Amino acid sequence: MIKAAIVGGTGYTGAELLRLLSRHPGVELAAITSRSLAGTPVAELFPNLRGHCDLIFSDPDPAALAACDLVFFATPHGVAQALVPTLISRGVRVIDLSADFRLRDVGAWEHWYGQPHAAPKLTAQAVYGLPEVNRAEIARAQLIACPGCYPTAIQLGWIPLLEAALVDPRQLVASAASGASGAGRQGRVDLLLAENSDNFRAYGAAGHRHLPEIEQGLNRARPRGAESARVTFVPHLLPMVRGIHATLFATAVKETGGEQLQQLFERRYRDEPFVDVMPMGSHPQTRSVRGTNMCRISVLRPQQRDTVVVLSVIDNLAKGASAQAIQNMNIMFDLDETQGLESPALLP
Amino acid sequence: MIKAAIVGGTGYTGAELLRLLSRHPGVELAAITSRSLAGTPVAELFPNLRGHCDLIFSDPDPAALAACDLVFFATPHGVAQALVPTLISRGVRVIDLSADFRLRDVGAWEHWYGQPHAAPKLTAQAVYGLPEVNRAEIARAQLIACPGCYPTAIQLGWIPLLEAALVDPRQLVASAASGASGAGRQGRVDLLLAENSDNFRAYGAAGHRHLPEIEQGLNRARPRGAESARVTFVPHLLPMVRGIHATLFATAVKETGGEQLQQLFERRYRDEPFVDVMPMGSHPQTRSVRGTNMCRISVLRPQQRDTVVVLSVIDNLAKGASAQAIQNMNIMFDLDETQGLESPALLP
Amino acid sequence: MIKAAIVGGTGYTGAELLRLLSRHPGVELAAITSRSLAGTPVAELFPNLRGHCDLIFSDPDPAALAACDLVFFATPHGVAQALVPTLISRGVRVIDLSADFRLRDVGAWEHWYGQPHAAPKLTAQAVYGLPEVNRAEIARAQLIACPGCYPTAIQLGWIPLLEAALVDPRQLVASAASGASGAGRQGRVDLLLAENSDNFRAYGAAGHRHLPEIEQGLNRARPRGAESARVTFVPHLLPMVRGIHATLFATAVKETGGEQLQQLFERRYRDEPFVDVMPMGSHPQTRSVRGTNMCRISVLRPQQRDTVVVLSVIDNLAKGASAQAIQNMNIMFDLDETQGLESPALLP
Amino acid sequence: MIKAAIVGGTGYTGAELLRLLSRHPGVELAAITSRSLAGTPVAELFPNLRGHCDLIFSDPDPAALAACDLVFFATPHGVAQALVPTLISRGVRVIDLSADFRLRDVGAWEHWYGQPHAAPKLTAQAVYGLPEVNRAEIARAQLIACPGCYPTAIQLGWIPLLEAALVDPRQLVASAASGASGAGRQGRVDLLLAENSDNFRAYGAAGHRHLPEIEQGLNRARPRGAESARVTFVPHLLPMVRGIHATLFATAVKETGGEQLQQLFERRYRDEPFVDVMPMGSHPQTRSVRGTNMCRISVLRPQQRDTVVVLSVIDNLAKGASAQAIQNMNIMFDLDETQGLESPALLP
Repeated sequence: MIKAAIVGGTGYTGAELLRLLSRHPGVELAAITSRSLAGTPVAELFPNLRGHCDLIFSDPDPAALAACDLVFFATPHGVAQALVPTLISRGVRVIDLSADFRLRDVGAWEHWYGQPHAAPKLTAQAVYGLPEVNRAEIARAQLIACPGCYPTAIQLGWIPLLEAALVDPRQLVASAASGASGAGRQGRVDLLLAENSDNFRAYGAAGHRHLPEIEQGLNRARPRGAESARVTFVPHLLPMVRGIHATLFATAVKETGGEQLQQLFERRYRDEPFVDVMPMGSHPQTRSVRGTNMCRISVLRPQQRDTVVVLSVIDNLAKGASAQAIQNMNIMFDLDETQGLESPALLP
Repeated sequence: MIKAAIVGGTGYTGAELLRLLSRHPGVELAAITSRSLAGTPVAELFPNLRGHCDLIFSDPDPAALAACDLVFFATPHGVAQALVPTLISRGVRVIDLSADFRLRDVGAWEHWYGQPHAAPKLTAQAVYGLPEVNRAEIARAQLIACPGCYPTAIQLGWIPLLEAALVDPRQLVASAASGASGAGRQGRVDLLLAENSDNFRAYGAAGHRHLPEIEQGLNRARPRGAESARVTFVPHLLPMVRGIHATLFATAVKETGGEQLQQLFERRYRDEPFVDVMPMGSHPQTRSVRGTNMCRISVLRPQQRDTVVVLSVIDNLAKGASAQAIQNMNIMFDLDETQGLESPALLP
Repeated sequence: MIKAAIVGGTGYTGAELLRLLSRHPGVELAAITSRSLAGTPVAELFPNLRGHCDLIFSDPDPAALAACDLVFFATPHGVAQALVPTLISRGVRVIDLSADFRLRDVGAWEHWYGQPHAAPKLTAQAVYGLPEVNRAEIARAQLIACPGCYPTAIQLGWIPLLEAALVDPRQLVASAASGASGAGRQGRVDLLLAENSDNFRAYGAAGHRHLPEIEQGLNRARPRGAESARVTFVPHLLPMVRGIHATLFATAVKETGGEQLQQLFERRYRDEPFVDVMPMGSHPQTRSVRGTNMCRISVLRPQQRDTVVVLSVIDNLAKGASAQAIQNMNIMFDLDETQGLESPALLP
Repeated sequence: MIKAAIVGGTGYTGAELLRLLSRHPGVELAAITSRSLAGTPVAELFPNLRGHCDLIFSDPDPAALAACDLVFFATPHGVAQALVPTLISRGVRVIDLSADFRLRDVGAWEHWYGQPHAAPKLTAQAVYGLPEVNRAEIARAQLIACPGCYPTAIQLGWIPLLEAALVDPRQLVASAASGASGAGRQGRVDLLLAENSDNFRAYGAAGHRHLPEIEQGLNRARPRGAESARVTFVPHLLPMVRGIHATLFATAVKETGGEQLQQLFERRYRDEPFVDVMPMGSHPQTRSVRGTNMCRISVLRPQQRDTVVVLSVIDNLAKGASAQAIQNMNIMFDLDETQGLESPALLP
């Protein structure tokens, strides 16, 4: 039984971790911390957990955390950096759902996040927690940097094409959209229902923090010697709660028909429990993965022209955050990779 | 292992049965029938079930159904009546999610459903599948009439008050609202997203088919000699997918304070795994029960006046249909009553 | 040309006033104030007004306001009380959209709003701005207290029954629901899209500030000597932006059939430009009044029992606030009562 | 006063025409036809028009239509082709909101719409009703082919770049999304609220009928001798009612900074009453144009790379259909181009 704790459990990724871990047979949740809500029962904040979780939010206690086998960080960026080094030195394993250790290039991190990095040395040690790419390293990692939501959907959509050198890495276009839960549980006017229901808009088109993470991942995927990945990434806010849909456009550099593309994707993900290549002609729906760790993907070449289109959907809080964190945990602790992640999506 | 089949699996209650049964350790699903989609894989219609359900819709085959331990009917009203008698005579147990066997009074059924009843004798044999009232009878029943969605939420809200003779049965007001999935999976203009998003309206205010079922249940709950229940019931259509919220008003006939009401409800439902009496001052939210078999209830007496208000929420497809059907199955087959129904709701 | 100003224009009622006044031929908008956004163009905050409104938010300037014919207050409660007395003494006419002058009983106001009233004497002078009741007084008023959103929908639904003494004033039940814009434009977690989409819940069931306003209005409507109105009022939050739906239940004290009720309502509102009695058997939809000053009402007596049901819909920001304010203005300044309020609702 | 009729008024574009024309001072609506609903009052189908429209749906009467100055077709494709020739020969002017006369290339039309064209000769005579491109021709046209919704948003977004030869016409990527009203008012399961709320998906990615219309328009815009436009166009369905958002990607062929792009767009649309170039750094929102004839556009060059991004929003039923039809009418009949189209969008 893994003894685990969650630091910063009052946001949506914390709530999702709690929901999923409450049914995981291999984990005992020892603590969940929140400075602002210390003393409040978890089930008071998240009424879906009444009867499922008896924990009470507590102040972070370094000794108690250090006594765990595993600590999840579900905190805003900048928090994990300050607390992780001590845990690492005590031999605790850490899965960080925030952005703190996602970028190998510390300078890039500091540029995009606008602050100095508090634990730059750990960055090199952190393993990027995308199991479809890094499974072996994850198994032996002490510190996992869990991928961002957009980067998960986008990398899984493009990796087969880049690995096979079928598209030009310099001309990648990602138009993606997220449910409002992706912006977190914070009282901002621009996230109100009254501002976003029956509305659709782009945001961060000039530059979003997930861009360097996406490009870093794609650069790892391309063959040696290939050009660097250059992505134009425009995220949008959907009038709904959960779900990411990435619509990906790339320029083919080889003649490849739709069936070959289909086979390429099916082959690449044949053994992946959480990537589902849809039948040709399908359009994946975000609701088909709601609450699950699944990524559903379609690939096509419209009108037999030279643009390859990939459609990739995940649940931003699940495969895009907390469920993927548990997938990482399962791998790290040598459990069945799908444990606690087997439920199908709610539909309708 | 229970060998089960589903008749009529292309609607939303069928989809919900499939989702829940796919994770139930005690059931083997042998067949799912649909005349219109015979030959189509279930997972093609419901993409959330890809990888979870390999079944193919088939034409109803009486012999195959008769070889099952249990048959669920997830059909429009009128269908089960025609098929159930044969199954019953062969010793198969049946859980009917439709309205066919809910009303003891066959004449009332024929009045409200506008057609002759095809199996009036079976009506007396059918057990109304509300475990919080009928658990012992359900355990030995061969034919279960699964309660309607509104009747479940409303009865669970009022039963403690009626049993305790605290309110006047003749002056009951139920204002309730349902997500659009309650209207089923059918191509009707008035159910389009473009007609219902950002919109709210009552329907069936002059008389809804769930009214006689509600009154029948309340009449069973009142003490001997009490007046007959008379309910004014107005249902509304919510711009959302799942959830029923019942706001119930009754006139107190005894002086009873808020704390006494709270204790009454807590006592009545203390041993019920799927009724959660919320703390005083709470307002239950439909999302807190989404996808689950839970009913969450609050009771209060606003402004210390003589109207008792009960707020009751369920998921119309779950506790209001398919999950309650599985709760019934668990009871009938002497399984743990919560088996396959333990997952907390998705939130947010 | 009426020279008007708006105090507190950054909320939703301010935005709606701006939208409606931008097309009103009889009004020149001289100023719109906001301490927090002084210097910001209105169209930057509300992009729908680009090209329609060149105003810039300004600090409130008493002299500039006093130079206007009319000042609207679209402020939180407590603000108008402090500023209105000076304007009144300078002869400016005032339409207050907040709750500051709605209750005649200053003690009740102080109880429900939890603070001392800063201008108790003006309360007696204020005219309650419900034209269907108070048209003559509105015409000569200097200070209008614009009705709340729920009180507008509920009073218009019940007034014909109370005036005709057809129902028992002591047994009134109002189950009502509002779009999320009713909670205002403020950054609160409980108003996020991620908290409210696909969700429905009651709030303030134990006591909502609109209750005394509703009862005050109903008491004015009942015949002399009738019992005081006692309302049980439960509001709910809808997963949508605009609209109020009130479902009203009252106990008939006289035998009155459905057609008589229909005639009563049609007669009562025959000359009202903004109350539309729907045909018998209809259910009014909130979208049918979106953005308009219309109230649509249906009345029925379900199952020929003794409970009369009224369904009443308005747009909470329009007839429930800003459009009704303009209707009051039109009456006060002897304009055509419908001026600037003629557009039909957007549908779908 | 223009005497006008609408053929096929039971869909959403018909409803929107009725809403807008009901307030247009220069038009008298003589008839609205529907075979299926002949005899039904328009306001019964569309309750927002109660009090605004006394018309009754009637069977199409060729003589009555021929007596009009103008006939709008708000019909499915294939219908106008059959009826327009007679009207044209009688001298009636026609604005067709369907796709029947949008494509110059009759063969392409027959390929994409899968049926023979019934009036191929009229195609050459039809004027494409995009005023920002064709104003002079529209003024003297007898037959207008009103642009599709996606083509309107997309062409207006790209035309300045193509006219200025700043981007490569062969590498155009359009990722666009529409509210569900774009699919029309038809009872299809895949358009239900229960299927689309809290869901997002692409559709028609392999080839959508608007593609040839988009390319035709872009080809007209490019300079002589430039390469043919090749667009990869992926439409998506939004969980909301109205609005189109087009996210457009093009490869710059000249060094052009963000300010130059901004100036280019501002210059191109300086005199256009219905195209609003947003300030640099803005992201247009669909709700800011809801119910209006406005197109709001932002242009940027993310990360100073060589991909130019344009964000373009319209209301699919308004500028994407019925309001644009009225703009065409105003031009054809020498009215003020903005008449009847001046109201700002509803927000929130």
